[in-house]
Amino acid sequence: MLLKIDRGAKMPLRRQIETGTKRLIDQGALRPGETLPPSRELARRLGVNRSTVYQAYADLQAQGYLLSRPGSYNVVQARRKEVAYDPDRRGMFDWARLSTAGARAAHDANLALASGAASHRPDKGRIVDFASLEVDPRLYPLAEFRSVVRRVLAESGRDALRYGELKGYLPLRAGIARRLRLHGISVSEDEILITSGSQEGLDLLIRLLCPQGSRVAVEVPTYARFLPLLALNGVEPVPVPMTPAGMDLDALERVLEAGRIRFVYSMPNFHNPTGITTQHAHRERLLSICQTRGVPLLEDGFEEDMKYFGKVPLPLKSIDTRGVVIYLGTFSKALFSGLRIGWVTADRDCIDRLAAVKRFSDLGMSPLTQMAIERFCRLGFYDLNLKRIHRVYRRRLTVTLEEMDRRMPKNVTWTRPVGGYTLWVKLPRKIGAAELRGHLAGYGIAATPGAEFFPGGRPSEYLRLCIARPDEDEIRTGIRRLGQALAALPL
Amino acid sequence: MLLKIDRGAKMPLRRQIETGTKRLIDQGALRPGETLPPSRELARRLGVNRSTVYQAYADLQAQGYLLSRPGSYNVVQARRKEVAYDPDRRGMFDWARLSTAGARAAHDANLALASGAASHRPDKGRIVDFASLEVDPRLYPLAEFRSVVRRVLAESGRDALRYGELKGYLPLRAGIARRLRLHGISVSEDEILITSGSQEGLDLLIRLLCPQGSRVAVEVPTYARFLPLLALNGVEPVPVPMTPAGMDLDALERVLEAGRIRFVYSMPNFHNPTGITTQHAHRERLLSICQTRGVPLLEDGFEEDMKYFGKVPLPLKSIDTRGVVIYLGTFSKALFSGLRIGWVTADRDCIDRLAAVKRFSDLGMSPLTQMAIERFCRLGFYDLNLKRIHRVYRRRLTVTLEEMDRRMPKNVTWTRPVGGYTLWVKLPRKIGAAELRGHLAGYGIAATPGAEFFPGGRPSEYLRLCIARPDEDEIRTGIRRLGQALAALPL
Repeated sequence: MLLKIDRGAKMPLRRQIETGTKRLIDQGALRPGETLPPSRELARRLGVNRSTVYQAYADLQAQGYLLSRPGSYNVVQARRKEVAYDPDRRGMFDWARLSTAGARAAHDANLALASGAASHRPDKGRIVDFASLEVDPRLYPLAEFRSVVRRVLAESGRDALRYGELKGYLPLRAGIARRLRLHGISVSEDEILITSGSQEGLDLLIRLLCPQGSRVAVEVPTYARFLPLLALNGVEPVPVPMTPAGMDLDALERVLEAGRIRFVYSMPNFHNPTGITTQHAHRERLLSICQTRGVPLLEDGFEEDMKYFGKVPLPLKSIDTRGVVIYLGTFSKALFSGLRIGWVTADRDCIDRLAAVKRFSDLGMSPLTQMAIERFCRLGFYDLNLKRIHRVYRRRLTVTLEEMDRRMPKNVTWTRPVGGYTLWVKLPRKIGAAELRGHLAGYGIAATPGAEFFPGGRPSEYLRLCIARPDEDEIRTGIRRLGQALAALPL
Repeated sequence: MLLKIDRGAKMPLRRQIETGTKRLIDQGALRPGETLPPSRELARRLGVNRSTVYQAYADLQAQGYLLSRPGSYNVVQARRKEVAYDPDRRGMFDWARLSTAGARAAHDANLALASGAASHRPDKGRIVDFASLEVDPRLYPLAEFRSVVRRVLAESGRDALRYGELKGYLPLRAGIARRLRLHGISVSEDEILITSGSQEGLDLLIRLLCPQGSRVAVEVPTYARFLPLLALNGVEPVPVPMTPAGMDLDALERVLEAGRIRFVYSMPNFHNPTGITTQHAHRERLLSICQTRGVPLLEDGFEEDMKYFGKVPLPLKSIDTRGVVIYLGTFSKALFSGLRIGWVTADRDCIDRLAAVKRFSDLGMSPLTQMAIERFCRLGFYDLNLKRIHRVYRRRLTVTLEEMDRRMPKNVTWTRPVGGYTLWVKLPRKIGAAELRGHLAGYGIAATPGAEFFPGGRPSEYLRLCIARPDEDEIRTGIRRLGQALAALPL
């Protein structure tokens, strides 16, 4: 056996023995059925520790290169062959025809999103990204998160990897409940369900409350991923226009009067996409309308903690004494977007029923990430991080509004949010999504055409500007470009 | 300020300053508006490092105890009050009435499961748990997993916490594709969707292929969590009996002839609950029937890697040249049950459409756990662990079958699986689920009544014995007790 090792190399000796042996086998220098030297003998010959050889052999066994025989001889194994992949093979089914109407609608919406995303590629080149609603990863409190994950795995590793509680990790639910009580929401840990981001919360609620063909009342414009989710579930959105003060409540009353609405969907804080925050009186009237009509009110508090200026009224859920409000929260917009941890709180029976839907749709969440977040919050890291990113985004939003005042053409207007990440820009005319996206890309910016936020995706005179990702310098560059792009918008 | 610290205590100095200050504020010794000593001065007075005081102050700010004023004075803050929780408050809605029929069915199934689980409490007392189908946590390769998580967070922390790719982490998909090709399945990474366990894969497939009121063909008995999932989605199971050789294929042909079936659901290896593994000829005929009738075949390979004895035929998907088979896999039954990572592989267009359903139902998976599993597999830990748990479960299954031969009454029969975790025991007579569970609990054992695996949950003469959790000694004790319990079963 011609195995050589190099003591000066960076690769560990164990790995050198493993890869060297593989090479000999792959090249045919060692053939199936041949016996390898006992680990003791090879160790002596190479001048390494016997356990090093032993471990290398174990790795080779695991990968199917060696077979261990009684008496611990290691024999080269005839390797199982990978079958080839044939990229030209065509299946017999037309999956579009086999799909449900809802799944077809979701597929079409997904294709539209993918083609929109492909047209700008913010990560490539020097495009300023005003499209992504993801907390700036440069701001992640990585060291703190690493330390809590390490401690969770060291102290509760087994429990972190077993099936967890159906409603979610109890101490996390208790921590969220305490936090919500500080926001004026009277809630216990049993009235909380942890979900895979608030998107799953939305899906579970639709599956709980909305039979196919039923209707929900939706602010228009609204969260872009909510509309295809309704379509997936065969549920029809009934539009209620947004005004500068929030949802048009007279219009809502007419909608609720006209027909059976399964729930009302609202984002009272830093509404996506408009950035509007409603005042207390608006919240009281909205709640009273839903209570009087007996229609559940879904409050999406996705950016509850992202207030930068002045006072923001307490959540609708905090003034709800009759269990009318179902409240959604998430860690995605104030901490890590990709950890996929959100929650729903509502009447206990409603939460129990949502949990049953979740049980059969995915058997519940991984405890690992929940335990990490719980410890992260308990040690105060969440609040510390919140303070830190508030400072950052307060400045970013200030710079954004200053630059907008300076750079926008006269016939363009926009909202002035007090928190969150999005501004809603009104252009001089309606324009199709693809055309607008292409025009902006030509000026080195990406932003989201308003069409995405309206049912049917019809051309709109709006544009959503999102400042989650770019820093202050990038914002200055981007808004200068936006001013030029909009000034040159073909009329 | 009366703050004292104790250098002999185990609590870090920073934490002592923090909790001591909190106590003074909570007791009213420090009142809102009062100024705390500057960190430099307090540090000198306590004889600690200034940064220790500084960090303690930062923690207190984060928790709302202190407000930092210009010039970095720290002022005691009037704390936001938690609202009280009123457990007696009742909401105005009847959530059962507001629920869809599917959600009501899921809720009922969930209640039945919860009452079943409550009746034995395997973790309490000395009950032997033959009910749980969860890899024994005592066998978890924790040290290896900790090390891969640490390295993922150190090397790719930011990417691990951002939104990930819709179909799942690409290197994980590539690794799974390679592994499937070693099992004879010709597949590329684009034909794989990572899911939150295979349960989510089942749900996505039903949502893709099954309109409300449609029908799927199901082995009976079958996986217990599949039936309520169908009910949740308003889909009807059409039963096809199991024979000792697998699904009754003559019966399947009659079912497919009789009416429009959206897909056929089958577990060819170590079928849950019966433990039956089908032979190659059975697989060929099953595939041929589905192909001829043009009906997708869902192959649940949930325990593909858990073969302990002899040769097991290659998956149905490996002999499928026409894209008839949709294959489900998971890490839950061979590694960690609670990590919630599974996958689906099928025709590319089918996978793209499933991904669209997943996009709007939960925006995709957390990259963190996917990256950890990918590295775990790439370093060979998965294969090493598999070898290790094979040795353990081969012994456990051998002991189980030996003890069954020795301990069972004459009028009891059972299956003899070659892998997986479950045996299917036939009792002398039919018995309701609650009665059987109660009877077994009286003898100190928990196992799952057969009723759970049949549509409608009607009384059955079967019992599922699952050996995932108990070790060899516990198995010996448990099967001795089972023999006594069944001998004493009231006729």
